[in-house]
Parts: sequence; C-alpha cells; structure tokens
Amino acid sequence: MNHKNATDLPFLQQAIDLAISSAKQQGGPFGAVIVKNGKIIGQGHNQVTENCDPSAHAEIMAIREACKNLNDYQLNDCTIYSSCQPCPMCMSAIYWAHIPKLIFAATAHDAAKAGFDDQFIYDELAKPVSQRSISIEHIEHDEANKSFEVWNSNLSRQEY
Amino acid sequence: MNHKNATDLPFLQQAIDLAISSAKQQGGPFGAVIVKNGKIIGQGHNQVTENCDPSAHAEIMAIREACKNLNDYQLNDCTIYSSCQPCPMCMSAIYWAHIPKLIFAATAHDAAKAGFDDQFIYDELAKPVSQRSISIEHIEHDEANKSFEVWNSNLSRQEY
Repeated sequence: MNHKNATDLPFLQQAIDLAISSAKQQGGPFGAVIVKNGKIIGQGHNQVTENCDPSAHAEIMAIREACKNLNDYQLNDCTIYSSCQPCPMCMSAIYWAHIPKLIFAATAHDAAKAGFDDQFIYDELAKPVSQRSISIEHIEHDEANKSFEVWNSNLSRQEY
Repeated sequence: MNHKNATDLPFLQQAIDLAISSAKQQGGPFGAVIVKNGKIIGQGHNQVTENCDPSAHAEIMAIREACKNLNDYQLNDCTIYSSCQPCPMCMSAIYWAHIPKLIFAATAHDAAKAGFDDQFIYDELAKPVSQRSISIEHIEHDEANKSFEVWNSNLSRQEY
C-alpha cells in the first residue's frame, strides 16, 4: 500500500463498513462516503427497498447528504469513496455533481458475481434507442422546445 | 397524429407544462409524468438548484413520487412521459425502476442546443475508466466482497 492509499484507506473502509452494516439490515450491500478537505461531509448506503426509491443507491444518498450539508448542488474539490464500482446511474450523478475523484473497492465484475449486474444498463445506454429492451418513442410536439425558450429568457435562472 | 398518440398526448402535454412552469420559476426546464392504468401516479420537474440535489431531475422526482404512492420500488406496467429525452442518469433510473415504456418530446439534440448537453456523460460512460475526465481509482481491499457475502447469507434480504 503506498502513501496515497494510506490516506484514502480510512474513508474507503468507512464506505465498506456502511455496505456491510446495510447488508446485515434492510439495505442493499453498498456504501459510499464523500470527503472534502479530509472530512466526511456525506455518506449513504443502498436504501432502495427501505425507502421505496429505485434511485436510493449509496452514492446518490451520499451526494444528497453532502449537498444538503454544504447547501450546494455541486461538489467540486470532493472525493467520493464507494464500496463498489458505481452503476451508470450513480456514475452519471457523480458527473452531474461535478465530483472530480472516485475511489472504489469491489469491481463491477465482483458485483455481477454477487447478482448485481450493471453491465446490462451500460450495454443498453450504448445502443440506439430503437434497439433498447424497453419501448422508447419520440413524439414531435409544437411546444417541445418552449421550456428551453422560457429558461433562456428567464434572467433569474440558476444554471447548474 | 395517430390514435395511439392521441391517448398519449395529454400525458406528454402535462410533462411539457411541468417543464414550462418549472422554467418560469426556480427549476430547470424539464418535466416528467408517470402513468399507470390511464392515471398519473407521479410527476416531477427539475429541482436540482431548488433542492440542492444534483439527482433531482424531473424523471427521478417523478419516479420517487410514483414509488411512494404505490409503496413499491418497481414500476412495472407504467409509462413515463418526459418533456425531453432523458439523460443517462435518468435513463438508468428508468431501467432500475423497471419502467417498460418511455415517451418523450424534445430530443437530446434540442436540449444540447439549449445548453443542456448530456452527450458528454454518454461519451464518458462508454470509455474505459482510465480514460475518463475524472480521476477513478480501484483500490484492492480484503473486505471488498464482504458485504456481498453478508447479503447472500441474509435470508431476510429483499431483492430489488
């Protein structure tokens, strides 16, 4: 273990501990921690079934908590530690949250062996919409772009 | 407009109306509606800045509301109507929620012209992690798979 990993290890351990305690109780076996300036500012575990919320993955719960604590919707200068390589939903949320650094322990391959296969969604996202496993239809609508026009003419809009 | 679209149109219109009203106020210019058996069971608009939550996109807000109303974490037999083609985070959430059908109005190209470019994230997800724009590091850890072992031996686990 190099010096860099020694700094990261307590935070990764906390993400793993959250995953283990979650699996022992009502949650999915995943945990995540967000760190800024050497301090944990948000953490979470998978609460999909507990909260009846398919978006309640560990990383997204941690992002929600960190943002609430910082009163900001961007997490620049933060690192997210995840017990496992994030699924495409959480990976995308990490981009939207502007988190510049991710460290994880278990790989997507490990997760797939345990029955959590994200590769299906990665594969779907790479296909044209006409070839996806779910029905996706584009309906042209005269007002399809109206919200964008309103947005761009709203001088008090808050960009994100 | 064919007969099928006539059935869908009021729900798509509601998603568009939510997007327009959101853009007039504090939200991002996106709206979504979830329908089951011809009735709206959840809806949402983009509340990223309003809620300080980067995951609070319209589709995810609608999924969370629909799941809460049904007291379930899966939305089989539902259709999601979105004012705009979903970003990869929301598209992944639609898969996790097991929603079999998506109908949208504005395209990703329309959104990009208005300043909302999701293609960056789609491109990132398709790259090997070593080539992404953010730093991603895998640290091997003795307990990396422990949460999965606990999960698979927990006989009261609730799969999702």
